[in-house]
Amino acid sequence: MSESVKIVEKKTIPSGATIIIGLPDVGLVGLIATSYLISELNLEEIAYMDSDLLPPVVVLHNGLPHAPLRIYGNQNLIAVISELAVPVPAIYSIIREIVDWGQAKKVKRIVSMGGIPVESRQTITEPKVFGAASNQELLDMLNKSGLSILKEGYIVGPQALSMRYSVSKNVPAIAILAQSFYNYPDPQAAAMVLKELSKISEIKVDVSKLLEKGEEIRLNARDIMKRTQQEMNRMKKSQEYDLPLYV
Amino acid sequence: MSESVKIVEKKTIPSGATIIIGLPDVGLVGLIATSYLISELNLEEIAYMDSDLLPPVVVLHNGLPHAPLRIYGNQNLIAVISELAVPVPAIYSIIREIVDWGQAKKVKRIVSMGGIPVESRQTITEPKVFGAASNQELLDMLNKSGLSILKEGYIVGPQALSMRYSVSKNVPAIAILAQSFYNYPDPQAAAMVLKELSKISEIKVDVSKLLEKGEEIRLNARDIMKRTQQEMNRMKKSQEYDLPLYV
Amino acid sequence: MSESVKIVEKKTIPSGATIIIGLPDVGLVGLIATSYLISELNLEEIAYMDSDLLPPVVVLHNGLPHAPLRIYGNQNLIAVISELAVPVPAIYSIIREIVDWGQAKKVKRIVSMGGIPVESRQTITEPKVFGAASNQELLDMLNKSGLSILKEGYIVGPQALSMRYSVSKNVPAIAILAQSFYNYPDPQAAAMVLKELSKISEIKVDVSKLLEKGEEIRLNARDIMKRTQQEMNRMKKSQEYDLPLYV
Amino acid sequence: MSESVKIVEKKTIPSGATIIIGLPDVGLVGLIATSYLISELNLEEIAYMDSDLLPPVVVLHNGLPHAPLRIYGNQNLIAVISELAVPVPAIYSIIREIVDWGQAKKVKRIVSMGGIPVESRQTITEPKVFGAASNQELLDMLNKSGLSILKEGYIVGPQALSMRYSVSKNVPAIAILAQSFYNYPDPQAAAMVLKELSKISEIKVDVSKLLEKGEEIRLNARDIMKRTQQEMNRMKKSQEYDLPLYV
Amino acid sequence: MSESVKIVEKKTIPSGATIIIGLPDVGLVGLIATSYLISELNLEEIAYMDSDLLPPVVVLHNGLPHAPLRIYGNQNLIAVISELAVPVPAIYSIIREIVDWGQAKKVKRIVSMGGIPVESRQTITEPKVFGAASNQELLDMLNKSGLSILKEGYIVGPQALSMRYSVSKNVPAIAILAQSFYNYPDPQAAAMVLKELSKISEIKVDVSKLLEKGEEIRLNARDIMKRTQQEMNRMKKSQEYDLPLYV
Repeated sequence: MSESVKIVEKKTIPSGATIIIGLPDVGLVGLIATSYLISELNLEEIAYMDSDLLPPVVVLHNGLPHAPLRIYGNQNLIAVISELAVPVPAIYSIIREIVDWGQAKKVKRIVSMGGIPVESRQTITEPKVFGAASNQELLDMLNKSGLSILKEGYIVGPQALSMRYSVSKNVPAIAILAQSFYNYPDPQAAAMVLKELSKISEIKVDVSKLLEKGEEIRLNARDIMKRTQQEMNRMKKSQEYDLPLYV
Repeated sequence: MSESVKIVEKKTIPSGATIIIGLPDVGLVGLIATSYLISELNLEEIAYMDSDLLPPVVVLHNGLPHAPLRIYGNQNLIAVISELAVPVPAIYSIIREIVDWGQAKKVKRIVSMGGIPVESRQTITEPKVFGAASNQELLDMLNKSGLSILKEGYIVGPQALSMRYSVSKNVPAIAILAQSFYNYPDPQAAAMVLKELSKISEIKVDVSKLLEKGEEIRLNARDIMKRTQQEMNRMKKSQEYDLPLYV
Repeated sequence: MSESVKIVEKKTIPSGATIIIGLPDVGLVGLIATSYLISELNLEEIAYMDSDLLPPVVVLHNGLPHAPLRIYGNQNLIAVISELAVPVPAIYSIIREIVDWGQAKKVKRIVSMGGIPVESRQTITEPKVFGAASNQELLDMLNKSGLSILKEGYIVGPQALSMRYSVSKNVPAIAILAQSFYNYPDPQAAAMVLKELSKISEIKVDVSKLLEKGEEIRLNARDIMKRTQQEMNRMKKSQEYDLPLYV
Repeated sequence: MSESVKIVEKKTIPSGATIIIGLPDVGLVGLIATSYLISELNLEEIAYMDSDLLPPVVVLHNGLPHAPLRIYGNQNLIAVISELAVPVPAIYSIIREIVDWGQAKKVKRIVSMGGIPVESRQTITEPKVFGAASNQELLDMLNKSGLSILKEGYIVGPQALSMRYSVSKNVPAIAILAQSFYNYPDPQAAAMVLKELSKISEIKVDVSKLLEKGEEIRLNARDIMKRTQQEMNRMKKSQEYDLPLYV
Repeated sequence: MSESVKIVEKKTIPSGATIIIGLPDVGLVGLIATSYLISELNLEEIAYMDSDLLPPVVVLHNGLPHAPLRIYGNQNLIAVISELAVPVPAIYSIIREIVDWGQAKKVKRIVSMGGIPVESRQTITEPKVFGAASNQELLDMLNKSGLSILKEGYIVGPQALSMRYSVSKNVPAIAILAQSFYNYPDPQAAAMVLKELSKISEIKVDVSKLLEKGEEIRLNARDIMKRTQQEMNRMKKSQEYDLPLYV
């Protein structure tokens, strides 16, 4: 059983594009938002990830088998999703592979979208969205676009690693995180994230359909949410509630 | 303890043949169907698999020891079965070895047969059969033959990996899956699969004997079913009940 | 901690001899029978096995330390025993090493002796003995000698692996198995095995002493039986009760 | 998933400086003291540690991601802290990397600060501070400075390893340990350690602010203390209560 | 985390000396006896063992850090002790390293001292001492010196491995074992072992002080005994109560 993870390209990959990462995580915010982008912008599958670290699963679409971890794109945009909860031991290799590959493709930047678990989510009518960036210049840009900055705190999981590896590879990286349920699919939070994305980039989508289909999505996402939760617990996701120490 | 899996050939292997994979899985559908093919077509043992990843077991037939994972065949047909539940950690290496070996032998295609767990199986008098294929051309062929296509969903386990590796090795692959019990041997489902196989290929068998011997087979298969179930649980086979997420 | 197993030779090893394997297993049948052979034929220690896979144990005999896994012999006979229950992870490497070494020494054949667990053992006054062989020619020989053939079924553990590796190394191999208790030392079964051994080979011993000392042996074997049982459970020895699937 | 740990330098590292190690440990004494040093002396981040052995976490400060294991410094001082409880399996590689790196940078010495768990801490108004050193000359220096020597006993964890590796690399090393709570953040103990540090080195800070902010720090440190405790238990930190054997 | 174990020499090591091994084991007999030798003969620290297989611990003596596994000696004598219970996975590498190193240093012989667990210890006023040796010549020497020989039985743990590796490296080896408590420090048993040691070698010490300080030692050894017991259980030390099988 090989431990490596590799990206298999099916189409030629554009250079200079923006990578959007939407792996299953808190409230599936990133996954829902990215999947919506893919269908709204009619992105086509351009690559997939292969690894024995992933469970023995394929996903059928119209009778054809697809790897659960796939990469869609057009000339300006590359979107990474997983239709499977990502096992914790695999997460390091997967994100590193994405960042290395992105660097090789000279991507403009890597944007990872996700949720911040908020215990009081139920009482929040419109989730707030926060941003973080791998360098000050990007941070100022977010600021100018009116995105509130996530000043202090821990980020755990895919977004954390995509930030970590992007920094060490000098790939510009942004994280856009909306207040969200911890273990309920949160399409509204996903919509809020996409709204902010449209402000800080040329990536524009109308989220109204996403909001209408909210209930239906929550239902379809029930299973992957359940499995994602197991992995989140394993990576001590709860840590995101922690207070960092300042002296 | 070596982690490798290798196919040991006892006869010269024909090229251009079709590989049938029938490893123990949901309802033992694939195993029962493939075993029946082997006895009906009097296929002879042409190879076996050797690996320390498999339990320390041999199977005696007429007093002679056989590897539990064996490969039978004639000029046109190669059939892979296991008389042992396959441990999850071994499944990756085993399927990859089969696909690589098949590619080296220039096989025409790889057909994996199996079951789709259906909770209402008890109430189903004639299990439906569904197909999936590694490329559109094959899918159209299945369609023309009147086989309903498994449009959306997860496949987990041997069939999933044989699809996955076949795709990445450009070996044409088909999966034929019948509605089946999850953890009861399902000879009827196996018969349904073989009927469809005969429609989409030159591999024809009369399944009447299989249906007659149903009760006896269910009895003989009791033990391997029990052990197979343990492995299925380990690989989260339950996932096949999951709804994929669409946005 | 090295994972390798190696045979350390203390005397020059004869070529063309018969190897008898009697590792702790069902009812300790093989171990008791082989130990009895060693003492009756006054075989001398000619080699031992060294491996970190074995527990940190030495056995003292007359104040001198001995490896628990030892090899005795004379010009025609090589006998392998273990005074320690063999841990499952080590069993693969140990048997493979024995077979490879035997092949290098051009042994005539490998005979592994053991027990078949029979739930009704208590009610059996004279345990039946069954044989299996690595090729048809040997099987016919067993037949002619009046040994009943173990036609269908699973063999699990040392005998299984010695068969498996012997076949792949083209070393002629025989298994002689007596009906036996699962987890009680069974000297009577051991005696029956030795009787059959004398019929099919030039290895003759008078088993009367073995039968007389039955009670005493059962007592001495109490401890190693207890530890052996733990390993048997670990390798799903229970599988030997399983029915193979025939279609 | 790589098992290596490497220090990534962001600024040129001065040679001849003193390294202060303040990883999360008993009462977080070392971490609190070192963090206070960093803020009081306005040390800037000069390097960080990267390893897959660490959890998938980044820490945000003013919206910018930071590795949880970071290295601050100026011309004379290098301070290592972790905002994350360090998993036991990673501790060996981390400390070894720090010592090797320190040796390469020709550091003057390595000072690790920490706490000694004292069950009666509650009743102690002013925690005593003890010192240990990697060689007699340093020990005499500590003595002259009026620091009581920790004569006999076990040290477990980061301080133990930094001592161990420093000795084998001939890097002068000192440990300064204050009586402390086992699993409550102990800012007062941290202040005592810093007082002693100022006596034995040119590193001077006014600890009054640290003492004032005691309550607030205890609160902020609550979470990392909780997680640190889990790791301490794992490394049998309790051993520090043990009596060594003298005959 | 490296898995290797290496001996780091601090002084030049004499050749032709006798190695005494006294690692924590049954009743700490070997450790107590060896520690007493070291203090009585004023042996100086000449080497220590370094390995990541050992817990992250240092022992302070007079404020200076020491590896828990240390080697003392003079011109004729080399004494190995551990102030830490040795984790089972490390024991193989440690003993092998000692034996290999001893062979390189052309040691005269390796003497491992220890205890034999005796359930009736409480009722024994003067523990008996038994010997075993790696070859007949040494055994005769022990005999002549009036040491009773441990004729039959299992030895488990450090003594077993030092015997095993000594034999395979042709280093003359002796084991001196006194009847002892299983999990209570047994200074009296240690004294008995030293008495016998003085008979069979030039290593003479007056054990009266050891007997006087008995109570105090038992107290100091309380903690390391507790931790040693955990490791003994892990290596099935109980096996030493087992009866070997004789047929």
